[in-house]
Amino acid sequence: MEYLRVSEAQRVVLESVALLNAESAGLEQSLGRVLAEDIRANRDLPPYDVSAMDGYAVRSADLVQVPVTLEVIEDIKAGDMPSKIVQPGQCARIMTGAPLPQGADAVMRVEDTQEISTQLIQVVTTIKDGHDVRPQGENMRNGDVVLSTGTEITPGVIGILATVKITQMQVYRRPRVAILSTGNELEAINAPVDMNKIPDSNTYALMAQVQALGITPALLGIARDDPLELEHYLKLGLEYDVLLVSGGTSVGVHDYVRPTVEKLGVAMKFWRVAMKPGHPLAFGTTGKTAVFGLPGNPVSSMVCFEEFVAPALRRMMGHPRLFRRTVSARLAHPLKMRPGRTEFVRVQLTHDDTGYVASSTGTQSSGVLLSMARADGLLVMPSDSTGLAAGAQVTVQLLDGTAYQNETNIRE
Amino acid sequence: MEYLRVSEAQRVVLESVALLNAESAGLEQSLGRVLAEDIRANRDLPPYDVSAMDGYAVRSADLVQVPVTLEVIEDIKAGDMPSKIVQPGQCARIMTGAPLPQGADAVMRVEDTQEISTQLIQVVTTIKDGHDVRPQGENMRNGDVVLSTGTEITPGVIGILATVKITQMQVYRRPRVAILSTGNELEAINAPVDMNKIPDSNTYALMAQVQALGITPALLGIARDDPLELEHYLKLGLEYDVLLVSGGTSVGVHDYVRPTVEKLGVAMKFWRVAMKPGHPLAFGTTGKTAVFGLPGNPVSSMVCFEEFVAPALRRMMGHPRLFRRTVSARLAHPLKMRPGRTEFVRVQLTHDDTGYVASSTGTQSSGVLLSMARADGLLVMPSDSTGLAAGAQVTVQLLDGTAYQNETNIRE
Repeated sequence: MEYLRVSEAQRVVLESVALLNAESAGLEQSLGRVLAEDIRANRDLPPYDVSAMDGYAVRSADLVQVPVTLEVIEDIKAGDMPSKIVQPGQCARIMTGAPLPQGADAVMRVEDTQEISTQLIQVVTTIKDGHDVRPQGENMRNGDVVLSTGTEITPGVIGILATVKITQMQVYRRPRVAILSTGNELEAINAPVDMNKIPDSNTYALMAQVQALGITPALLGIARDDPLELEHYLKLGLEYDVLLVSGGTSVGVHDYVRPTVEKLGVAMKFWRVAMKPGHPLAFGTTGKTAVFGLPGNPVSSMVCFEEFVAPALRRMMGHPRLFRRTVSARLAHPLKMRPGRTEFVRVQLTHDDTGYVASSTGTQSSGVLLSMARADGLLVMPSDSTGLAAGAQVTVQLLDGTAYQNETNIRE
Repeated sequence: MEYLRVSEAQRVVLESVALLNAESAGLEQSLGRVLAEDIRANRDLPPYDVSAMDGYAVRSADLVQVPVTLEVIEDIKAGDMPSKIVQPGQCARIMTGAPLPQGADAVMRVEDTQEISTQLIQVVTTIKDGHDVRPQGENMRNGDVVLSTGTEITPGVIGILATVKITQMQVYRRPRVAILSTGNELEAINAPVDMNKIPDSNTYALMAQVQALGITPALLGIARDDPLELEHYLKLGLEYDVLLVSGGTSVGVHDYVRPTVEKLGVAMKFWRVAMKPGHPLAFGTTGKTAVFGLPGNPVSSMVCFEEFVAPALRRMMGHPRLFRRTVSARLAHPLKMRPGRTEFVRVQLTHDDTGYVASSTGTQSSGVLLSMARADGLLVMPSDSTGLAAGAQVTVQLLDGTAYQNETNIRE
């Protein structure tokens, strides 16, 4: 059977999963979800012309010739309504956000005036109509769609939702995800240490990758290499929207799992992808459940999750952005490569005057999970590459833990 | 009073907050926390030399002259222990991860052999000692520190924790954070619409920014402009590790809040920072509680949170990375600027052949929260800049929602 390219395999996966239905979420539980309805403004904001500054509401026509002395007729605080009309030669003391009184058409900053008495100010600069005034409806107009279906709910979006007083909204449901490890060689986390066994790390690394997307997965545990036990666990897993099966070994497990999953109605879409690490990766679907057969090697399993499972889960939740953010970096050292497969090299990122610098985390053996724990990103080596020299520009996918950095790296 | 530079104000804030004490967390609730203890390996991994491939465990000395025919003496699966010693002229069928039998020193891939019968294979290539063998302790050695205090718990780290069978660990406590809005002009989210009031969005935008750091804040509500009410709410807030007070208007609220917070024992460290948006920003501490006085304008409040509050909260939780990740981008259009203050311009990021392209989200008025909701990042304009031409290279701090992107942007 042919090896699929990474992008072909991604396309197959993404075409096989559907946007889930909507459900209701409260504002305080909505961060990171995706809106499944349009949100409209419930009023004009600001509701009228308001001051953008602390200062004086003035008639710009009064200031054509300066200096000029103006009479202060009242104090308008935010939350107050003006009670007087500003006539020629008059002004009103006004706070940021307070409504502009009738007659006034501009705001003079307090710094640009001189107080002669509590009732009199002198103005020495001229300003135009509308200066430092936030016009009615500048932020939003009553009835307008301010947030559309498909918007990811970030803190800024939550600010808008609170502004239009939405406490409950429709969001796309999160997929129910089950995680199953397979193999006689695996030792459960609560089992005593057995030197002849391998601790089951995949269940928990995958759990955390799923949690990082805002989903709490069900951990089904470890299925031993027994057809009936495997069938029992796989049946359990097929009750979920997504089933992640991580296998102990390559040819062995596939020979073993394949007939069982097919017997249970899973139509397999692919079995091989031309990537490293990432062998063997399989994908199929029952129509109801998307089934990923992930490698038993912990690094391979995590990389396959990043490249295929995360985009699928994000699509199901309605996220427009499916793929890990990439940055361009300079390679710190040469990298050898055997062409034929897209290679994902675990790298650490540092920063110098020229931008990002990527260095390998060390051994790239797919058995060495520490390399993944230490990685800031995955450097993507194209499949036709035979290697890169030190200093080459490379593309790096950012991993978890890289939303923040050590230094500000800004010039202030 | 002098205006502090952004970096000076950040330094003052970070020097005023301390790492919190440790607490116990379960593995399944530990993602995103920071380890407050060193974690050691509880065995060698692999516990002995194991095969890195499906193939045949061979004696490399047998393969000096090829082709050669070898007798297959047993099948070793992952989880099995070898029962025989491989003698000259012999080999054992071996699965990935299975222990290398005594006598053998290398693994020949199944693809590089030819099966003559179930008991006999022919090998046509020569390999060296150690080929496709993962040596004992390659991943970790019993007793070695595999994760140090101060490590952020990412999915890869959770894989390591599961590997060494840690189900409960010490992590730094999360700060208890209270959020208070102030001002008569504010309308609570559950209050009826009053055209003369401004909906309180800051409480919820700040809530979401705090939630994005893994902390569930306490929402104290809205304190009206009354000294006794304000004192009551501030006293409540000073029971927390961090108190965020967002004020309605600039000079007014500060005049109002300042005597009350000082009366309650808050030593103010600064009142002014040379940034835009971000006026007025204040910071003080009681020793027990760090108090941030944030601007009433929703965008200003969010930007101040990003630049000052988030780094402080992350330091308290033990994160080594305190500041938002930055990327370099090309400016899509000219930007004007009045020098004197560091300016944070809300931008959207796209990607072309040359890398990131930054474009303003539109109006940069600090009252327009939609600009923040639409922003992918904050473009940082140095305080000595008088503007930038289209095409200029700029630094952009990535905001929430930017951990993923629309396209893979990789060459595979």
